[in-house]
Amino acid sequence: MNLADALTDTASKVEALFDTLIPADREPVELSAAMRHALLAGGKRIRPYLCVEAYSLIAPVSDSIYLAAAAIEMVHTFSLIHDDLPALDNDDLRRGQPTVHVKFSESTAILAGDALLAMAFDVLCQPHLGTAEQRIDAVRLLATACGPAGMVGGQMDDIAYEGKPLSGDQLKHIHVRKTGALLEASVGIGLTFAGAGPEDKERLAHYAHCIGLAFQIVDDILDVTGDTATLGKPAGSDLGLDKATYPKIFGLDGARQMALSLTADAKAALSPYGEKASRLNALADYLLTRSH
Amino acid sequence: MNLADALTDTASKVEALFDTLIPADREPVELSAAMRHALLAGGKRIRPYLCVEAYSLIAPVSDSIYLAAAAIEMVHTFSLIHDDLPALDNDDLRRGQPTVHVKFSESTAILAGDALLAMAFDVLCQPHLGTAEQRIDAVRLLATACGPAGMVGGQMDDIAYEGKPLSGDQLKHIHVRKTGALLEASVGIGLTFAGAGPEDKERLAHYAHCIGLAFQIVDDILDVTGDTATLGKPAGSDLGLDKATYPKIFGLDGARQMALSLTADAKAALSPYGEKASRLNALADYLLTRSH
Repeated sequence: MNLADALTDTASKVEALFDTLIPADREPVELSAAMRHALLAGGKRIRPYLCVEAYSLIAPVSDSIYLAAAAIEMVHTFSLIHDDLPALDNDDLRRGQPTVHVKFSESTAILAGDALLAMAFDVLCQPHLGTAEQRIDAVRLLATACGPAGMVGGQMDDIAYEGKPLSGDQLKHIHVRKTGALLEASVGIGLTFAGAGPEDKERLAHYAHCIGLAFQIVDDILDVTGDTATLGKPAGSDLGLDKATYPKIFGLDGARQMALSLTADAKAALSPYGEKASRLNALADYLLTRSH
Repeated sequence: MNLADALTDTASKVEALFDTLIPADREPVELSAAMRHALLAGGKRIRPYLCVEAYSLIAPVSDSIYLAAAAIEMVHTFSLIHDDLPALDNDDLRRGQPTVHVKFSESTAILAGDALLAMAFDVLCQPHLGTAEQRIDAVRLLATACGPAGMVGGQMDDIAYEGKPLSGDQLKHIHVRKTGALLEASVGIGLTFAGAGPEDKERLAHYAHCIGLAFQIVDDILDVTGDTATLGKPAGSDLGLDKATYPKIFGLDGARQMALSLTADAKAALSPYGEKASRLNALADYLLTRSH
């Protein structure tokens, strides 16, 4: 299976699980509707994919790993719902759909996010995922990635520094927590359930760290060089917001060089796995060369 | 130790843990300040107390159970921060202090709540709490109590039904999830780490269920019969809000009778434990007879 087919395959499996985990008729139905709206709005499902692919480096993929992958995407979705709120990024649209607080209400969006975060941990407890030791390791990885040292801390600083000058290191420190922590947890959780050792975990954490940063740099570059139609969102929106970006700090060429070098680093981390890692290699290239 | 001293003792141990778990100088410091403001604002710490006392019925209390108790109170505090938000109950004051969104900002309050919820699961993973099996059981109990079938679902319905007529059963169904679920999880987690069997868990769950409902009924009664100075909040505020309450549905005498009968039920569930349960008995009486 090539990368595109594999991404689609993972997405459809994870979406089927969302449909089972949060049935439309489960009370309170308005809460279920809001959670489903956010969960089933599409998206590349990069985090579930990283979890499953990391698992596959060590052990033949089993159905149960998709459940862990779904839990990770629930946490990602929780963060999108809360980030979109009027008090945070105040976004009305996501993937062409009204955001949860627009379609439902602000209180429903807050509670739907909370519910997804809590449920994700419940999902990781399911006995057939792995041993109790593996499940508790997965809970710890996910909780740490969400908390003050991870996503929430990064988002907090992102808001605090809005409109203020940032050094390259400060910008990187925000992204490493805001998006990098959950990407690293995704491969970490996959490897944990596959029974991988510390060396594998270290290599894949480095891979995830590098593609996460490269992804963000490419995002910033596309905001400068892309056109609105291809991006699906207004080009140049970062400039308008007086937001710190990699091209602003390092120049367009400097930023491009960083993204290239991070992608090379990510792929180097995979070299011990040879052919088995071909799709993770392709993913790193895809994230670098995408046009939107 | 009598009940009052035991409550104070648990509160001081749990608060010392908060101070260690979230040091004031941990980055982002504004996030830590918001979390500490909410965590260290006082309160009776009923949930940690229930966790520790339930543990003590089965095994001699060890230091580690206070860490689980702290995790539970972090989840309770998360729910208070989010419930106070402008989009939900829009409360400016809690325990005489400005609420988190008033003292800090709305975005900080949302993120501080999220961080506390995520961190609580991280805390439950700490190895010295118990076996991996016990810790994963505790995670599951806490996650279920927070999710759509617990706190968040109850809060969602509480908002949805505001200003609408409610039957006694509907009102009870909201409270059982909004406050009861976490009380039941508190004793459940204590018993899990103590190595209790299913019979103990069933008995204590029933005790927690009964005192939780009695607590809410007494709250509603005090809103009618208490005066503002004793309550520390405006008396009669439920009437003004056109809110469904037990005295409105069952009459003042009917509500009193229900609270009495639930307290008797709660104490009956403890009878197999004899003297060991004397403080849990005293707690049930205290919650019934309190004047604020």
